[in-house]
Amino acid sequence: MPNKDLKELWKKVNQFEIANDMDIVQLINSLKGTGFNAKRLALACEIYNEMVNDNECVKFFGLAGAMVPAGMQRIIYDFIKEGFIDILVTTGANLTHDLAEALGYHHLQGDYINPNDLDDSELHKEEINRIYDVFMPNKVYEGIEDFISKLKIPDYQMTVSSFLYYLGQQLPKSSQSILKICAEKEVPIFCPAFTDSGLALQLGFHHQKINLNHFKDMLEMVNLAWDAKKAGICIVGGGVPKNFIMQSLQFCPNSASYAIQITMDRPESGGLSGATLKEAISWGKINESAKYSTIISDATIALPIILWYLKKSRV
Amino acid sequence: MPNKDLKELWKKVNQFEIANDMDIVQLINSLKGTGFNAKRLALACEIYNEMVNDNECVKFFGLAGAMVPAGMQRIIYDFIKEGFIDILVTTGANLTHDLAEALGYHHLQGDYINPNDLDDSELHKEEINRIYDVFMPNKVYEGIEDFISKLKIPDYQMTVSSFLYYLGQQLPKSSQSILKICAEKEVPIFCPAFTDSGLALQLGFHHQKINLNHFKDMLEMVNLAWDAKKAGICIVGGGVPKNFIMQSLQFCPNSASYAIQITMDRPESGGLSGATLKEAISWGKINESAKYSTIISDATIALPIILWYLKKSRV
Amino acid sequence: MPNKDLKELWKKVNQFEIANDMDIVQLINSLKGTGFNAKRLALACEIYNEMVNDNECVKFFGLAGAMVPAGMQRIIYDFIKEGFIDILVTTGANLTHDLAEALGYHHLQGDYINPNDLDDSELHKEEINRIYDVFMPNKVYEGIEDFISKLKIPDYQMTVSSFLYYLGQQLPKSSQSILKICAEKEVPIFCPAFTDSGLALQLGFHHQKINLNHFKDMLEMVNLAWDAKKAGICIVGGGVPKNFIMQSLQFCPNSASYAIQITMDRPESGGLSGATLKEAISWGKINESAKYSTIISDATIALPIILWYLKKSRV
Amino acid sequence: MPNKDLKELWKKVNQFEIANDMDIVQLINSLKGTGFNAKRLALACEIYNEMVNDNECVKFFGLAGAMVPAGMQRIIYDFIKEGFIDILVTTGANLTHDLAEALGYHHLQGDYINPNDLDDSELHKEEINRIYDVFMPNKVYEGIEDFISKLKIPDYQMTVSSFLYYLGQQLPKSSQSILKICAEKEVPIFCPAFTDSGLALQLGFHHQKINLNHFKDMLEMVNLAWDAKKAGICIVGGGVPKNFIMQSLQFCPNSASYAIQITMDRPESGGLSGATLKEAISWGKINESAKYSTIISDATIALPIILWYLKKSRV
Repeated sequence: MPNKDLKELWKKVNQFEIANDMDIVQLINSLKGTGFNAKRLALACEIYNEMVNDNECVKFFGLAGAMVPAGMQRIIYDFIKEGFIDILVTTGANLTHDLAEALGYHHLQGDYINPNDLDDSELHKEEINRIYDVFMPNKVYEGIEDFISKLKIPDYQMTVSSFLYYLGQQLPKSSQSILKICAEKEVPIFCPAFTDSGLALQLGFHHQKINLNHFKDMLEMVNLAWDAKKAGICIVGGGVPKNFIMQSLQFCPNSASYAIQITMDRPESGGLSGATLKEAISWGKINESAKYSTIISDATIALPIILWYLKKSRV
Repeated sequence: MPNKDLKELWKKVNQFEIANDMDIVQLINSLKGTGFNAKRLALACEIYNEMVNDNECVKFFGLAGAMVPAGMQRIIYDFIKEGFIDILVTTGANLTHDLAEALGYHHLQGDYINPNDLDDSELHKEEINRIYDVFMPNKVYEGIEDFISKLKIPDYQMTVSSFLYYLGQQLPKSSQSILKICAEKEVPIFCPAFTDSGLALQLGFHHQKINLNHFKDMLEMVNLAWDAKKAGICIVGGGVPKNFIMQSLQFCPNSASYAIQITMDRPESGGLSGATLKEAISWGKINESAKYSTIISDATIALPIILWYLKKSRV
Repeated sequence: MPNKDLKELWKKVNQFEIANDMDIVQLINSLKGTGFNAKRLALACEIYNEMVNDNECVKFFGLAGAMVPAGMQRIIYDFIKEGFIDILVTTGANLTHDLAEALGYHHLQGDYINPNDLDDSELHKEEINRIYDVFMPNKVYEGIEDFISKLKIPDYQMTVSSFLYYLGQQLPKSSQSILKICAEKEVPIFCPAFTDSGLALQLGFHHQKINLNHFKDMLEMVNLAWDAKKAGICIVGGGVPKNFIMQSLQFCPNSASYAIQITMDRPESGGLSGATLKEAISWGKINESAKYSTIISDATIALPIILWYLKKSRV
Repeated sequence: MPNKDLKELWKKVNQFEIANDMDIVQLINSLKGTGFNAKRLALACEIYNEMVNDNECVKFFGLAGAMVPAGMQRIIYDFIKEGFIDILVTTGANLTHDLAEALGYHHLQGDYINPNDLDDSELHKEEINRIYDVFMPNKVYEGIEDFISKLKIPDYQMTVSSFLYYLGQQLPKSSQSILKICAEKEVPIFCPAFTDSGLALQLGFHHQKINLNHFKDMLEMVNLAWDAKKAGICIVGGGVPKNFIMQSLQFCPNSASYAIQITMDRPESGGLSGATLKEAISWGKINESAKYSTIISDATIALPIILWYLKKSRV
């Protein structure tokens, strides 16, 4: 290892220039010769591109954080539409927000300077729910409730993923719904903490007999990981989606060969969201010869750049 | 508001002294007159103590992060034993680690200086799983597997919380098991992302028919929140436990009157774990007249101090 | 304020699409309709562009962090060359690294995956100094020492800024030296903590009589702030450069009308680097009607994007 | 290295209990057997205690961050009074705040719940300067100005450290002034960025001929480091004080044998404040056989605990 490291030292840092007419691929190629998170972002772009061009690689994508309220719904939609995601693991919250937009409701922009200034008591009276500097009116819940209450549940004991597939099929044509495009492209969505969401609350309130099978999902996910000749993972934000992908790979013949992580969390306090990808090698979740890169960045900055790079690289 | 704030300004900062013979209550009382996270820690201690002394208050405790591997199992155990927690919401990981210790297995300490130095490939060969600077040998899984495979499941469709109550009853007497003391004290444990854990994997592998009812748990939790004359919450680390408690309080007649949050996450990137408690007021999860305090601190430092304060205050 | 905020709520979040053929200006314009740090980055771009197009505005730029070792030397060079910086305040470290590159030495790239893995004892034996994942060989110091030891100091009591101007004039023509381009464009460089640098150490070792006047710099900076009809500030990383700019504006008739901050630090622990720009209004450092935006991001990602936007907007 | 690490693994994590009647030494001893930052805090206490008991060790203390406004003035005072600091390196801001308290002025407590809520424009009108949730009225500056304007400067070309020693001597007897106790105990104070402070501004305004010699301080500091048989360092917050101590040790025969760091900054974005202590080994600033520990914590929580431990251990 140290020898390898020392050999690498002989490359000089690239004091790169921004050219007006350059494109995103040129910027990322320049950043690859730098350091810190700029370099990691460039490596993540390169690794993701390899994943995309590796036909044997099954691409697991873990999505946490309020990405849909922050305007990243179409970004995720395109990752799926372009075939950059084979299996999506996400939070109930993102699915609830996606459903809201799919039903024609919208998230709102707020005061962009000092969101913490806002009088949250007044917002509460106005029935506006705050997510840092974006907002969701309570009436969105009414729309979801109306939709869910009328929804025919084909099987109260179906898996969460099969329910989400069914749900996606019921949605109106949409240019940006994650649920819809996953159903169209048959990209399975796993949501281990589904009952931790407004969507699940409405299901529970209106379909008392429902008992979606979380355990079958868990085993299906293990099988998908087991069957993957090669696995690649992209983790946005950490949380349950990160751990659920990781635990599925832990006991597989082939752990992940590619891994990308975009997070603001750090390893020092021991939480999984901030855990290094290197640490996952000890668990057998990531292959010791894997290519991996962690970017400490708000995903709202890093994800659009990675998508732009992937789309442009393919052209 | 500003008037109130400006009136508060006339208190001078307390340039306090450390006396050898002082106790933790005196330290916290001194810190209350300071600023930054020291002051917030003092406020959290004071608020938690009020919760404990408020007979009408139902105390919800959300626990995320690898607290058991980090040696905090007995700390949580005492929070429950002392009656400082009425309802526990946690991750499958903490329950898996708790079960391991309850079955006589142990987590191990590692190189305390540079955990990232460790050769994770070598650890993998040694079958030692790393959690930053603590470790869990793979053989722990064998112990859990052996125990779970022999476990008689009373009802494949029972709720997760009722299963965890049953599980706690099956465990040997223990001076530190969270599952055991919760069963003894009849403190319900909710685990919305239960299938995101090694414990659930073993259940799934050995009891194929299992389909624990997550939706009933969700509705039970809403009822518990609904029935609470007064609610108090303590959030450690954020994640699903935080959101699950918050969503249960959102539509209740009485949102939280007391709230404490211990986390390393921050609000700026919009994730729920780092969201301010103030923001929760807009959602109606926290009462606009609530007392609340967020401490930006590793919970391994803050939790023992809070427990020490609460125990000492009671004497 | 709340009314203004609530009016803003009626704008819906922009679920934007990445088009292959779009340019950086289009990306930033799309991000402006989103949330979290993506939105703040877009606002920062817009605000900086306003500063550039406001002929009355004097642009103060505070640069901390190891930007030159990380390959950002040419980025800063272009900010100056393009006229995006009128007054630069930076650290002795950045000037030392800039001088090294100007003298033909280079910073080196290291192991991009796990810099913390590197055996720092071995690096020490190899005389390679590590800055996270970039490196500076000790021989760079020899080059600096050789240059500084031969340097004729025109006046031992000159100000630091006048010395840095003189130093820039002595440097070989360069396409990327910050010292050189500042001398050419007559952009003053202030360095309040100059003696906290390898460059100053060499000066002290070889020119024992030197006593550059730091106080005159301090007063000159106050005068520059005082004379500015309008002030705009861009803070990278915080530290002394941030505070030095802020203290100069504090007692001026016109505090800052525009402010941008790029940092990974946060306000909760009370350090100035993470302090909000809003807080600076109480000090009179920033105007209450100022436009400002803080981006929580590694500057190695945000700065190239801002420069790209500014250059492209000008075309 | 890995062998050593693996041998360490065989110690089990200490699932410790909080006893009412335990003292701080017992708590720290318990935390030493845990993980994450609790363990690092325990190690820091132990290492600092070793420094104190090592008669050959010169203890360098780097203090950044608004510690005096946050009520930590008496804590620092006691570190010096107890002989736990031999050489102090700090910021002009901390000295300005210390002087204010020494002259009988006070910092004020603010709204402890939502400091970002405060109307900073109103605070500005009230001439109250905000530091997150503590405050300094502008009239403090008048007191400092009055004192400094009347101060007789013995030598306009003296070093900053000799000026600060002289300044401490001029101050009224005080039970908490850092400047005063350093003068009494003849603990030198270095302040490389002195002109980046309100104190220096008043000096500059009222003593136009002043040109304190920063270079002599720099060389004196190098000599102090050079002459130290053994060096120990404690870094609070990072910034210039950290780098100034580190650069002085870099070229010494004996680099640091003990090192403690308390910070909220992280290494990934390459700034010095967040740089690991391990990285400093490559520079020769820290000895490869040194004992060191970094605590990711607000210093307002960690410093009082460390002081309490040190005082109690000595009894």
